[in-house]
Amino acid sequence: MEALAKHVLLELNDCSRERLSDIDFLRDTLLSAAREAGATIVGDSFHIFPPYGGVSGVVIILESHLSVHTWPEHGYAAVDIFTCGNRVRPEIAVDLLVRELQAKDSSIVELKRGILNSPVSHE
Amino acid sequence: MEALAKHVLLELNDCSRERLSDIDFLRDTLLSAAREAGATIVGDSFHIFPPYGGVSGVVIILESHLSVHTWPEHGYAAVDIFTCGNRVRPEIAVDLLVRELQAKDSSIVELKRGILNSPVSHE
Repeated sequence: MEALAKHVLLELNDCSRERLSDIDFLRDTLLSAAREAGATIVGDSFHIFPPYGGVSGVVIILESHLSVHTWPEHGYAAVDIFTCGNRVRPEIAVDLLVRELQAKDSSIVELKRGILNSPVSHE
Repeated sequence: MEALAKHVLLELNDCSRERLSDIDFLRDTLLSAAREAGATIVGDSFHIFPPYGGVSGVVIILESHLSVHTWPEHGYAAVDIFTCGNRVRPEIAVDLLVRELQAKDSSIVELKRGILNSPVSHE
């Protein structure tokens, strides 16, 4: 089935707790993940929250977005990689994030979004 | 199963094409949806793209994020409502978005993110 977009949901467990509460590190890492995957970055917004220093961040790309939410107290991060077209390679962003957050356990779900009845051009 | 967050994936079809390419309208609507659902807004980032005027936008909330991506040429919008805790009511945001984007057809998937082995406090 043809779809307008691909949505990768990444669950990262047993991560480095220090990195999960380092907003500068997380912003740099998500921007790198977007860039390495071949996306064109158009904006970003990152925030850190008390009491455990959890971080929420989004990178808007020409091809949709990447987001991260972290719970340092649980060693957990939820990442979403939402892309349209065939140029971006989400699997590269996934590998980079698993490695940089030092996740000892991870799982991935890939969904199609915007499933259409008629074929779609990815140009 | 206890989880750290709730993730609602909303597919909106047969929407008003005019509204799907109106960045100011979409920003106001997503901010209203966040507010009406009981979320605390901490930032937002919206962008419009050629050639069809599709819009990508994210509202970062204290409780995670709301995002929208629109394809006016297909009458389609993908919305994500990612929340933690029990205070935010995503169903209120869903109702508002379906109504305001005049979606004639919609579907919802609700996922748990960050499923843990031990019970979680939502305070």
